[in-house]
Amino acid sequence: MTSRNIELFVPAITPFAADLSVDTGRFVAHAQALMDAGAHGLAPFGTTSEANSLSLEERMAALDALIESGIDPNQLIPGTGCCAAADTIALSAHATARGCRGVLMLPPFFYKGVSDEGVFDAYAQIIDAVGKELRVYLYHIPQMSGVPITLPLIEMLINRFGGQIAGLKDSSGDWENTAAVIAAFPQIDTYSASESLIPENVSAGGAGCISASSNVNPKTIRALIDGLGGPDQEALHGQVSAVRRVFEGLPLIPAIKAAVAKQHGDAGLARVRPPLTEVGEAHAAAIDEAVRIAGPQGG
Amino acid sequence: MTSRNIELFVPAITPFAADLSVDTGRFVAHAQALMDAGAHGLAPFGTTSEANSLSLEERMAALDALIESGIDPNQLIPGTGCCAAADTIALSAHATARGCRGVLMLPPFFYKGVSDEGVFDAYAQIIDAVGKELRVYLYHIPQMSGVPITLPLIEMLINRFGGQIAGLKDSSGDWENTAAVIAAFPQIDTYSASESLIPENVSAGGAGCISASSNVNPKTIRALIDGLGGPDQEALHGQVSAVRRVFEGLPLIPAIKAAVAKQHGDAGLARVRPPLTEVGEAHAAAIDEAVRIAGPQGG
Repeated sequence: MTSRNIELFVPAITPFAADLSVDTGRFVAHAQALMDAGAHGLAPFGTTSEANSLSLEERMAALDALIESGIDPNQLIPGTGCCAAADTIALSAHATARGCRGVLMLPPFFYKGVSDEGVFDAYAQIIDAVGKELRVYLYHIPQMSGVPITLPLIEMLINRFGGQIAGLKDSSGDWENTAAVIAAFPQIDTYSASESLIPENVSAGGAGCISASSNVNPKTIRALIDGLGGPDQEALHGQVSAVRRVFEGLPLIPAIKAAVAKQHGDAGLARVRPPLTEVGEAHAAAIDEAVRIAGPQGG
Repeated sequence: MTSRNIELFVPAITPFAADLSVDTGRFVAHAQALMDAGAHGLAPFGTTSEANSLSLEERMAALDALIESGIDPNQLIPGTGCCAAADTIALSAHATARGCRGVLMLPPFFYKGVSDEGVFDAYAQIIDAVGKELRVYLYHIPQMSGVPITLPLIEMLINRFGGQIAGLKDSSGDWENTAAVIAAFPQIDTYSASESLIPENVSAGGAGCISASSNVNPKTIRALIDGLGGPDQEALHGQVSAVRRVFEGLPLIPAIKAAVAKQHGDAGLARVRPPLTEVGEAHAAAIDEAVRIAGPQGG
């Protein structure tokens, strides 16, 4: 185990108003609640945040609102990866100028079957354009992007950009891959996408987790991180894993939003943008169960 | 066979300057050459055009340049489908305002495993926002988008929007799917993505083809369409299929651009944006062969 900080970054959901515009007030309130509950930081505008369903202007305005609400930019790792380099550059430059700790960057994800060299070129043109202040957390989510962040690609990027490659989020669900990344690149912060994996991640030398379900269960996930190696680890791990398991049987993002809505007693928080659809009555009991297991998660 | 017009729409490549900015001069010149060679129209800003690697501003400016060069907007079906609805609406409204025949619209393609209802909602919000003048050609390319345009989805869209659903491009390479779409929805124009399939497409009641390799072989593909049922059909079909077969063994888009570059004696036409990479020397002989089989393709 290294001496790195172990952290929970929450990929905060993006609430929508009835007309599906971004509900900035609810967004900031939820973000503040997550920080109050013990999140080390937020990784907004990722998959859970429906970021690719937002315009560039919406993403930048919502990030500005978080910062203006008083959240330290050093606790923010916003997602910025788009298909078009110009868009990724615009978002990454904006986040960097606002002082964010780094950005979580998808590779361009329309073309499939592309080479590591092509994906390297794509990242390189962004980093070269944004400049030396940019810190990149690579986003490995091949089941959505169709473009994996392979070990050879990570090596090429670190060789060229050194410490500007700050970390990686492994959303593949493949622990063997996460373990291989941590072993090969101990100098970067590697996050698991499930809180169930926190003990393994940390034992292997990883940096913690960035998990969709931490929108629902932030306080207990933080308690697990703080309690690693202590007498409560097993109970805390059992609780977070139980919540996670409920969500794994459901359409993940709509279910997370429905659970947050239930926790806050605010049905509007459950709204999603197409192509996602709200969870129906068929899943209501499961959502209730996740919320019940999570228990009070206030700050 | 219906009495519909059988047409070739070319998904024109997007040339780039040495700094990878859009080379508008080369773009317009190539587009004009395709029209002179007999294309019925152009379907720019699709997969072959690397449209998702362009910003919204670049896409709109390049479409404006085509129209300002004198190409009839009624011969243009630009691609407009992005992940964010606001972006798709902006591009579709722009193309509609410029008088384009319609737009070729990808579904939002980041999220995978979404329901037909969710994809329907995504299309519906675009059509409702852009208005009654919009004509939509659905873009089925599941190997890239990860989001198929299913028959039940097409039915839902036609039931709601009638003639605003103008057609479909089937880039799946699955002839059985194309045949099923044509049989179920004879009221829309269904295009194959390979010129090899033109005889089958037309016999079944389809509308022709929108094919990447028509950037290289437009004149002969047009001749095949004009010669369907005539004495030269077999020879023409043999030629277009032979050219197509060469490309199917290569990285398609870089190979198409390399072949166009070879035809025009202009190496700059081969440039691609990341994550694509230019074809290397290993494929040079195959590119030469495709160009040789195609033969002179000028207007």
